[in-house]
Amino acid sequence: MQIVSLSMATAKRKKASKKDFILRRAAAMFSEKGYSATSMRDLADAVGIEAASLYNHIQSKAEILQEIIFRMTNDCNVHIGELEKGKLSNIKKVESLIRFHVQMMMYQCDDYTVMINEWMHLPEPYLTNFNIQRRQYVVKMEKIITDGFQQGEMKNIAPYVAVLTLLSSVRGLEFWHRSSQKISPQKIEDDMVNFLIKGLKKN
Amino acid sequence: MQIVSLSMATAKRKKASKKDFILRRAAAMFSEKGYSATSMRDLADAVGIEAASLYNHIQSKAEILQEIIFRMTNDCNVHIGELEKGKLSNIKKVESLIRFHVQMMMYQCDDYTVMINEWMHLPEPYLTNFNIQRRQYVVKMEKIITDGFQQGEMKNIAPYVAVLTLLSSVRGLEFWHRSSQKISPQKIEDDMVNFLIKGLKKN
Repeated sequence: MQIVSLSMATAKRKKASKKDFILRRAAAMFSEKGYSATSMRDLADAVGIEAASLYNHIQSKAEILQEIIFRMTNDCNVHIGELEKGKLSNIKKVESLIRFHVQMMMYQCDDYTVMINEWMHLPEPYLTNFNIQRRQYVVKMEKIITDGFQQGEMKNIAPYVAVLTLLSSVRGLEFWHRSSQKISPQKIEDDMVNFLIKGLKKN
Repeated sequence: MQIVSLSMATAKRKKASKKDFILRRAAAMFSEKGYSATSMRDLADAVGIEAASLYNHIQSKAEILQEIIFRMTNDCNVHIGELEKGKLSNIKKVESLIRFHVQMMMYQCDDYTVMINEWMHLPEPYLTNFNIQRRQYVVKMEKIITDGFQQGEMKNIAPYVAVLTLLSSVRGLEFWHRSSQKISPQKIEDDMVNFLIKGLKKN
């Protein structure tokens, strides 16, 4: 009885890791070619299985997109939730957000790129749901900027402009992956913090 | 004789302004739907003429893309050329570049968006030529940052990171056009300068 249940657990684990592998390959393809231009057949070829076998692991292309984007969304929500509960100064909260986003772009570039470039292909109800969460995330970031100004930590920069600048800057790192630049991820993260935090600080 | 030449001049002027109108409509469509997804028929419909008549003004879809992108490229080259010849401090040169790029994004948004998002669809020899000019432009921006550090005006931030951050920040303004934010272009420009210049300055 125990042997049966162990082998079932192993099979389950193997299936889960196969699914992870499919999601990783899919993120790479969606990120490079775009969601619309990637077919299930392309994906099966990239994974090295028959297209029909793909459906043992996932139900549809849309389901893959949903999983990729909602895993990233969860990470973002958890991170900003911890900042809200924590006791950091507002400027330190912004620093933490910059580092968090730079690290996502450095180490989970495909997933992050899919989230920011391909979200509009989510089917309902996920599309509306994602948009609401995205808007809430921006509102939370804007509140940190507003609090930072009101508490005398930051300059009076429109929160909308500050958040747009922060998120766009990180987004630009997409190009770093394709460039021949030999700058380390850590140096990029530190320089970006140095640049952007000093720009926000009051003194 | 004079009358004939005047009416020829008028006809020529009308044709030129019709072409400008076609280019503006094309930039709006390329920017919104992408170059690949826009057909000559779509464009003719948007301009309000027969598809066949389009060819009185332009030879191909590629030619439109070339004209849009190389006009913008010229503007960029002229601007940075003037900065190179001028006597501004390096920090003032960066400020001028930020204002220039923000203004392009604010007032020539379609053309600018087509340049940064659709350049890869240029046919040769324009594709290679554009890439060389783009690289030269970035090298010139990086030199201003390097000079700024060496002359004690700026912090020691990798020029690659600084230029990427500057250009990406401006690129993000693409979203401003689609948002319901009521911030004026001038306020956005000033806040972005305030944010980014202070971030680069040594003291």
